[in-house]
Amino acid sequence: MPDAIDLIRAKRDGGRLAPADIRWLIGAYTAGVVADEQMAALLMAIYFRGLAADELMAWTDAMISSGERLELSGLAAPTVDKHSTGGVGDKVSLILAPLVASCGAAVPQLSGRGLGHTGGTLDKLESIKGWRASLSNADIVRILATTGCVICAAGDGLAPADRRLYALRDVTGTVESIPLIASSIMSKKIAEGTGSLVLDVKVGSGAFMADVASARTLATTMVELGNAYGVRTSALLTRMDTPLGRAVGNAVEVEESVAVLSGQGPADLVEVTLALAAEMVRLAGLSADPAAALGDGRALDRYRSMIAAQGGDPDAPLPSAGHTETVTAHSGGRLTALDARAVGVAAWRLGAGRARKEDPVSAAAGIICLAKPGDAVEAGQPLLELRGDDPARFERAREALAGAIEIGTDAPEPASLVLDRIG
Amino acid sequence: MPDAIDLIRAKRDGGRLAPADIRWLIGAYTAGVVADEQMAALLMAIYFRGLAADELMAWTDAMISSGERLELSGLAAPTVDKHSTGGVGDKVSLILAPLVASCGAAVPQLSGRGLGHTGGTLDKLESIKGWRASLSNADIVRILATTGCVICAAGDGLAPADRRLYALRDVTGTVESIPLIASSIMSKKIAEGTGSLVLDVKVGSGAFMADVASARTLATTMVELGNAYGVRTSALLTRMDTPLGRAVGNAVEVEESVAVLSGQGPADLVEVTLALAAEMVRLAGLSADPAAALGDGRALDRYRSMIAAQGGDPDAPLPSAGHTETVTAHSGGRLTALDARAVGVAAWRLGAGRARKEDPVSAAAGIICLAKPGDAVEAGQPLLELRGDDPARFERAREALAGAIEIGTDAPEPASLVLDRIG
Repeated sequence: MPDAIDLIRAKRDGGRLAPADIRWLIGAYTAGVVADEQMAALLMAIYFRGLAADELMAWTDAMISSGERLELSGLAAPTVDKHSTGGVGDKVSLILAPLVASCGAAVPQLSGRGLGHTGGTLDKLESIKGWRASLSNADIVRILATTGCVICAAGDGLAPADRRLYALRDVTGTVESIPLIASSIMSKKIAEGTGSLVLDVKVGSGAFMADVASARTLATTMVELGNAYGVRTSALLTRMDTPLGRAVGNAVEVEESVAVLSGQGPADLVEVTLALAAEMVRLAGLSADPAAALGDGRALDRYRSMIAAQGGDPDAPLPSAGHTETVTAHSGGRLTALDARAVGVAAWRLGAGRARKEDPVSAAAGIICLAKPGDAVEAGQPLLELRGDDPARFERAREALAGAIEIGTDAPEPASLVLDRIG
Repeated sequence: MPDAIDLIRAKRDGGRLAPADIRWLIGAYTAGVVADEQMAALLMAIYFRGLAADELMAWTDAMISSGERLELSGLAAPTVDKHSTGGVGDKVSLILAPLVASCGAAVPQLSGRGLGHTGGTLDKLESIKGWRASLSNADIVRILATTGCVICAAGDGLAPADRRLYALRDVTGTVESIPLIASSIMSKKIAEGTGSLVLDVKVGSGAFMADVASARTLATTMVELGNAYGVRTSALLTRMDTPLGRAVGNAVEVEESVAVLSGQGPADLVEVTLALAAEMVRLAGLSADPAAALGDGRALDRYRSMIAAQGGDPDAPLPSAGHTETVTAHSGGRLTALDARAVGVAAWRLGAGRARKEDPVSAAAGIICLAKPGDAVEAGQPLLELRGDDPARFERAREALAGAIEIGTDAPEPASLVLDRIG
């Protein structure tokens, strides 16, 4: 039997762990034979030493094998999913699932909740009266077969070892390790049973990866891992320096998603959504044009069916906030920067996000960006609208915005939000 | 209040922790606010990033402050102690304490038990009928005042935070970190209250530090730490490639120590003992000649008084083993190598050592080196005598010795065991 201390020391000293040893480690950790403190030391050693390709495969495999795998191969349509590494105002999943379904694919979008300055897809959809995030595996398959898309909570049965490891990484400063991030994301997506997968790896101040080089490494690692498992996988690197679209929060992001599905909505959000949709359609082996599906109402119809299939009323009014304040321009000129992370933290402080996973979120709280970088602004003009239920929260939200707004004389060069495609 | 995760991440990313943050960490860990898994991750980050001088001071300080400090300043004689990083056949403490006491110093030798392939001073002395390792602080001071030396267990009251941290390091692969080793050793020695301290940092196959560069770094770190606390501290780097002396075990090492105290004993053991004794006498500000004290019986008298003061009978026969086997020379020539680690592991397997700190040890088990490197040997000549109570243990002991004995044609160059002095 392998010895946990020997394996920790081997990784610490730059050695390579055998696949069988990694399987033993994850199994013994799940069984409580390897203690939390031993796994924590190993995770920190992995932070410094990394995992080689075969180690990463074995690690991911052990997490997939720790739970069940969803069986979607009985569906008539090709399955394709998207995963985003998280950004501010990133409501793309809400639009993509029905949009790509309306192009002929089945989209099993198993999602999580928000933590910190980035929101969660499930939190956003829970603004809709009656909508349920939790579905049985049978319900997931049935809704996919009839509606072509589902957005729901990833059940506890998928990659439970990853769930436990993630909680440990969260408290031990070992989240920011590319192989650990890659295996955590990919184990859940592979267990979910999708045939194809597009990764939206965000880069910039509002993203988990601040620089392009790290984002590219993460994207490449995940694309290789997915393809090695027979999941057709590709990745887009997209910019996340300023909020995506104009709405940051929960109900406000649902509202903006419906606007995009109705053929409207902000240009940046539409650009990223269509780029990801085109990639998903391509991987799924389909030929439909996602832009057309946005224009002719097919995607919106699909969205309404999906919400209704999960108990939601797509016509119910969304919650609105009791208090509203604005942040105005301190001078005139061009808005040259509106920092994504600062806006994300401010929205979080207004109540849209949570600090601990047990915390509730406010459906109505959030921020509307009344101007976007590149826009001409006048001194005193409202730039942000802050919304919340609790007036006491506004001051700390404003503090988060200190330095987040830059006004200059030259408009930034318009540039594509899509930096690169990998795979 | 500092946040444990922020501090782990700061150290992980190569930052420097403020002394106040380190004090908080150790205190919060002792109080259970910082969890084992968080401290384990921090220890691994320290393994990779090290600790700067001010961090190391704060870390050591926090461990000293976690418990009591022995008050020895009331003694008339200058206090001086020795610490060895551990080797095979290293019974030097048993000889040094009475020897240096007979030169006019008071020697408070607070010791530990053996773990793994190196033996423990207390285990060796417990071969003596009636001898007690546990003494109250009052007894320690009284015996020091009357006999001039005491060898006993370091009480639980000294640096308890280090005790808990050491247990955590032991199971998380974070023992081999120079600042963590240095602070662990020095916190206990500083809390012990000695005025001067000589460190015997062993280098070689049987030592914790296999190379001279690491041993030198460890020695320098500890010497600086001791002097910063007002403890006059110096270190000798000594070779540990082959067992020190001829006896490896418990009772057999007591017997060999008595031989040295009687002016006999193997040359290598006498050399290291006298070098350390001279250094201790120098730091204590005394001028006596340790070699003379070995020759005229004063050191032996002091040893007998020390054993008797702790309830032991220096005249009682030592336990002898029920089974004896020999390992013979496979060819004739010169013994060119007799590997310290292999002999240490073999003695451990015969019963002289323990794998876990709860395990008992055999007083009689051990190994006698009948030849030492440099000796001419004939094919078939006995080189090692293995002793033990349990015949079933001999086969695994022999396995540990595979490759440990080298016989060639040229005798190795005689070289001093003392490689360097630091401080």
